[in-house]
Amino acid sequence: MKNTLMRWKLPIVCLVWQVAMIILFGVFIRYDEESDAHWSVTMLSQNHSLLENQFYFRYPSFQDVHVMVFVGFGFLMTFLKRYGFGSVGFNFLIASFSIQWSLLMQGWFHSLDFSDGKIKIGLESLINADFCAASVLIAFGGVLGKVSPVQLLIMSLFQVTLYAVNEYIILNILGAKDAGGSMVIHVLGAYFGLTVARILYRPNLDQKKNESVYHSDLFSMIGTLYLWMFWPSFNSAISNNGDAQNRGVINTYCSLAASVLAAIAISSVFEKKGKINMNKVKEDRAKAQISQDLLQWQKRPKELNNRVMFRTDSSVAGVALGSAAEMMANIPYGITDCSELSQESVSTLGYIFLSPFLEKYLKIQDTCGIHNLHGIPGVIGAIVGAVTAAAATEEVYSREGLKHAFGFEGKFADRTPSVQGGYQAAALCVTLLLSVGGGTIVGFILKLPFWGDPSDENCFEDEVYWEVPGEEEAALYSVHYADSPPTKSAANGDTQQ
Amino acid sequence: MKNTLMRWKLPIVCLVWQVAMIILFGVFIRYDEESDAHWSVTMLSQNHSLLENQFYFRYPSFQDVHVMVFVGFGFLMTFLKRYGFGSVGFNFLIASFSIQWSLLMQGWFHSLDFSDGKIKIGLESLINADFCAASVLIAFGGVLGKVSPVQLLIMSLFQVTLYAVNEYIILNILGAKDAGGSMVIHVLGAYFGLTVARILYRPNLDQKKNESVYHSDLFSMIGTLYLWMFWPSFNSAISNNGDAQNRGVINTYCSLAASVLAAIAISSVFEKKGKINMNKVKEDRAKAQISQDLLQWQKRPKELNNRVMFRTDSSVAGVALGSAAEMMANIPYGITDCSELSQESVSTLGYIFLSPFLEKYLKIQDTCGIHNLHGIPGVIGAIVGAVTAAAATEEVYSREGLKHAFGFEGKFADRTPSVQGGYQAAALCVTLLLSVGGGTIVGFILKLPFWGDPSDENCFEDEVYWEVPGEEEAALYSVHYADSPPTKSAANGDTQQ
Amino acid sequence: MKNTLMRWKLPIVCLVWQVAMIILFGVFIRYDEESDAHWSVTMLSQNHSLLENQFYFRYPSFQDVHVMVFVGFGFLMTFLKRYGFGSVGFNFLIASFSIQWSLLMQGWFHSLDFSDGKIKIGLESLINADFCAASVLIAFGGVLGKVSPVQLLIMSLFQVTLYAVNEYIILNILGAKDAGGSMVIHVLGAYFGLTVARILYRPNLDQKKNESVYHSDLFSMIGTLYLWMFWPSFNSAISNNGDAQNRGVINTYCSLAASVLAAIAISSVFEKKGKINMNKVKEDRAKAQISQDLLQWQKRPKELNNRVMFRTDSSVAGVALGSAAEMMANIPYGITDCSELSQESVSTLGYIFLSPFLEKYLKIQDTCGIHNLHGIPGVIGAIVGAVTAAAATEEVYSREGLKHAFGFEGKFADRTPSVQGGYQAAALCVTLLLSVGGGTIVGFILKLPFWGDPSDENCFEDEVYWEVPGEEEAALYSVHYADSPPTKSAANGDTQQ
Repeated sequence: MKNTLMRWKLPIVCLVWQVAMIILFGVFIRYDEESDAHWSVTMLSQNHSLLENQFYFRYPSFQDVHVMVFVGFGFLMTFLKRYGFGSVGFNFLIASFSIQWSLLMQGWFHSLDFSDGKIKIGLESLINADFCAASVLIAFGGVLGKVSPVQLLIMSLFQVTLYAVNEYIILNILGAKDAGGSMVIHVLGAYFGLTVARILYRPNLDQKKNESVYHSDLFSMIGTLYLWMFWPSFNSAISNNGDAQNRGVINTYCSLAASVLAAIAISSVFEKKGKINMNKVKEDRAKAQISQDLLQWQKRPKELNNRVMFRTDSSVAGVALGSAAEMMANIPYGITDCSELSQESVSTLGYIFLSPFLEKYLKIQDTCGIHNLHGIPGVIGAIVGAVTAAAATEEVYSREGLKHAFGFEGKFADRTPSVQGGYQAAALCVTLLLSVGGGTIVGFILKLPFWGDPSDENCFEDEVYWEVPGEEEAALYSVHYADSPPTKSAANGDTQQ
Repeated sequence: MKNTLMRWKLPIVCLVWQVAMIILFGVFIRYDEESDAHWSVTMLSQNHSLLENQFYFRYPSFQDVHVMVFVGFGFLMTFLKRYGFGSVGFNFLIASFSIQWSLLMQGWFHSLDFSDGKIKIGLESLINADFCAASVLIAFGGVLGKVSPVQLLIMSLFQVTLYAVNEYIILNILGAKDAGGSMVIHVLGAYFGLTVARILYRPNLDQKKNESVYHSDLFSMIGTLYLWMFWPSFNSAISNNGDAQNRGVINTYCSLAASVLAAIAISSVFEKKGKINMNKVKEDRAKAQISQDLLQWQKRPKELNNRVMFRTDSSVAGVALGSAAEMMANIPYGITDCSELSQESVSTLGYIFLSPFLEKYLKIQDTCGIHNLHGIPGVIGAIVGAVTAAAATEEVYSREGLKHAFGFEGKFADRTPSVQGGYQAAALCVTLLLSVGGGTIVGFILKLPFWGDPSDENCFEDEVYWEVPGEEEAALYSVHYADSPPTKSAANGDTQQ
Repeated sequence: MKNTLMRWKLPIVCLVWQVAMIILFGVFIRYDEESDAHWSVTMLSQNHSLLENQFYFRYPSFQDVHVMVFVGFGFLMTFLKRYGFGSVGFNFLIASFSIQWSLLMQGWFHSLDFSDGKIKIGLESLINADFCAASVLIAFGGVLGKVSPVQLLIMSLFQVTLYAVNEYIILNILGAKDAGGSMVIHVLGAYFGLTVARILYRPNLDQKKNESVYHSDLFSMIGTLYLWMFWPSFNSAISNNGDAQNRGVINTYCSLAASVLAAIAISSVFEKKGKINMNKVKEDRAKAQISQDLLQWQKRPKELNNRVMFRTDSSVAGVALGSAAEMMANIPYGITDCSELSQESVSTLGYIFLSPFLEKYLKIQDTCGIHNLHGIPGVIGAIVGAVTAAAATEEVYSREGLKHAFGFEGKFADRTPSVQGGYQAAALCVTLLLSVGGGTIVGFILKLPFWGDPSDENCFEDEVYWEVPGEEEAALYSVHYADSPPTKSAANGDTQQ
């Protein structure tokens, strides 16, 4: 039996890190303009209303995202029959740590005010911190049940850092676009988690423990539904105000509804006896992620339309392409949904053929199936983005449209679409490299023998790290077993003879 | 044993319908003005703020309604001890299908733009689609546990169609008012579902299976509470902006609170030994529906008040009636709450005397008691509406008030209140006719032998259509039964001797 | 066995009170300006938009608070293994009663319009009613499982009254500040509940029944997470529009995240074998309450900053203090978080040393540990407030700043900070006195023998007051116990021999 005692390790890591963060917050973090007390003075002096605060236009989406991170991811993972406390509780712990640490890391990389060396945070920072926590929780899904809370905290510390670095490289240096978070959230989270799971491979692990029971599956449905229902908020939370947020919601809503039918159909086809597998249904929520990536590209043809309209439809050359583009731009789920279905198929084939392959040949034990849920959709989303960018032409988009769509401004002013396509592909490669590289380093750190990870027979067991209500459980049911509870009869077999 | 294999039927129905909808979306559905990319251009050119998008004033209510449809209805029905997957999962499936199909159907009937033959959808369309899904889920409650997913999809297809047709007839052709959705949502859903349940009557069904267990009732409370808490959003989601939405929320909030006390009181009186029945408590949420109907009529006297005020209270004749009207208009739950209580009593008497009658004499097996929950309240709401309309006089309301309250404009300009009362009553009859007629047709279609419905002994059993985690369940508890789990001891009784 | 029959007592109390409230609502309650139908007329006549209704800026927060009260508190208390119905159901009942009664009580004390003798309610009134219900539910936590629903209703009736009276005395008469509700919500609720629990002390109560099982703890986590996630809404729901609400959310978000790490650390240190106790983790949500109290005081130095800025930093004397103040004002969780940690330690020491003391020496059986969750944090928050007020000087705050921060206006215009500190302390004493005094009276009323409270052996048992699904429960599991269910084998021990 390994030593899984957390008495000193966990409290020390928690407290030291928390105190460190408090100090760093004290030194670096300040309120941004809209949450600062001076804001009201400024607004009132300019005859503006106090109601024109971004707070009112972001807060409902923010709370939805917050629910997704804590209830959605937390309960999604409660499907394991004896790991409910760990799923919800560790989710709670590492998400709470990650949002604080990512406020600092994302702040240093993205919103450091060089005039006073401070990070100005506002509601949008909180949403971004929740996004980063979502990426951490994706990785958590890969190692669920096989690591100690201290290992989880170390993973989170590194992954949040990696997240901010990767985001900085691909968005600021490479100038890639990643509106839906395909690369920064999903690819990074999935491949980082899978790499760590690979390094921590347990050859003798009994996979039978990695199973659900009836009620644990129902708890898991709570998480599934919240992730599904609030996905429109996730996709639109930091979009531009006005029609963009509105469009993002409508688009995601339609795509999500379509994905449910696809998921149930495919589950029924491939499952033995044609029954539906609840876990398969849960997956579909991830598919909608790609819709946001496509929505991002939809904006471009939009520009075309504006341009075309403004030029009073004089362009004839653009008609053939334009009609496709128009369709892409104006149909809430036309294109995205086709992709949804093909996506669904790819993911299911992955589920059936790839998952055993991962385990057998790559020796990756992926508890929650994050490769199918986040890895593959993320990579496909990124590739589609690269191809779409490379295929864009000035004839269809106009120079202005290209500039607007790809951000060909400032230091990226000289780019052409094909170059942009290359950078999009480069961004995917960088993300993959960073996640596998970072995951390898973190994996070996976590392999050190003193982090208190559970032995093989204790994996997927709450009792290792949690005070679990013990014998009393039987009592609940024994009341109904007439008068003599099976607890006793089983324990003291003698008495029955 | 019937053949309940879903392998080909379910996937084919799901995929074919989904592909059909994608094509129809591609042909018909476009973004409306406020979610279209041109909107921002227009707004900015007119010096308007991007924040004046209906999105910001509807989105929180929309998400609440969305939660009601998926978590509320889904978990409400998990009370059956072995039908949790089916309750949540089929709810998920048919709601997802219904919202897509109703975007199309409602679009064709209500928001088809004849200039380009397209349906323009926005956030309000999504809310209306969720409302339509709610009606479908009400009918689902009547046949819960006794039909296959394919049958559910067929039911939904027809009911959504019926919903759009009925809405078109009673609102557009008959010119009736139905603000709270009494008729279009509740009466239609309940009587359609009951008729289908009647046709699918199973004489040998063991009603004992239609029961709850301790934890399934707790899951069910999740659904109950979400339906209850978000009812104010349901009632105000598509109200006019400003005070109307505000008033709708306050009114519903107060009525809902009152209904809880009434429900618990009545449950305690009629239940054996004076204990409270959880299922009875759950019902009270439906009672608040009627409050919205009354709120609708409250608006009329409001107009009176304005008129009176503007005419500086010169009207003496209107005082007696006016004071009653004023009370009706200004007291958040005065009238609605009295009706609440009488409503509650009617529903409970229904629960005690009518439900057995339904089963015994009408041969309707109503799994969730939708007749008491939605049928009776809906009919009462509609009748109250008709009577109130018929009793309105020009003296009390003024010509202007009548016009505003009943929409006596356009082709309905010549109507008098008593005529309007007749049309309200006609609308109820049309709704009842359509639901019973449609339900009969659909019922006989569902009786065809190849839809894979479960045999009597498999009703209310998840195992027929779902991969249920099997023997492992015992393992969870056996761990606590000291060392020798009852699983074995019970199975191999020999070992104990 | 005591007579716990509720058949007549509960329905009569519910119905009589509900009818009384309907009449009182009819006499007293009217819509306020923004929910009244005249509002739209006024706004439109002044060229204002219908969107400038407080509804849109409060509604999302209101719904979050509403969810906290019904799902948060309701499910939080489901940890008891056989008291899930009572926890959720009685929570539902008394919260529904309390919000109605507090609309009346708070209305009479705070928003009675003397011109027409009516109470004008709006969305903010509903939020305040939910706050009052939260205080009632805190007290409920102290007596959970040991009283009848009639006793709970009587407790609620008195506590809501006490709440309104206390609020009136400390805010309006003493002129104290209590933005976070430390005193009015937490101290009052906790000490009122504890006093009642003391009077109702049951010397022979078997504390073993006061325990959780695995799934009941998971249900409880639903409540915990909702209380935690929506705390930012709770703290900002009635703040001033604009930056104040924004700041309140950011501050609470950061403090809450920090408190999770602290809670897990401390639980792990003090728990036997270093395991984490789920119940300990649940507690941390209460800690964030204090952050709002401190946020209140943060506003003051803010004023200083403005002043300093406006005076172009000419003040040198204020630098030393000002830098501390600046830190306090501009760092989202700097100070509050330090307090968070010390708070956490105090509460944990309380949990370990004080709880047994409460039970053994003070004879208070505190089912949910409300003393640690709400009592201590509330008192500390109030003391910190008093000390901060007393220590404020005109040099640091400027006369204007003091006026703004402490409300030194009107009849309090002559106050100095040290006097204000005294009044803050007096407010705490008044609150404590009222809660203990009121609790004593109510406790003795509840000791009367005819309220149907459960006997000692029936405490923490749903079966006393609820229709509990009975023997069927075993059936669910027995299906999985191969073929011969343990129900029978245990009941008919003979068959096995």
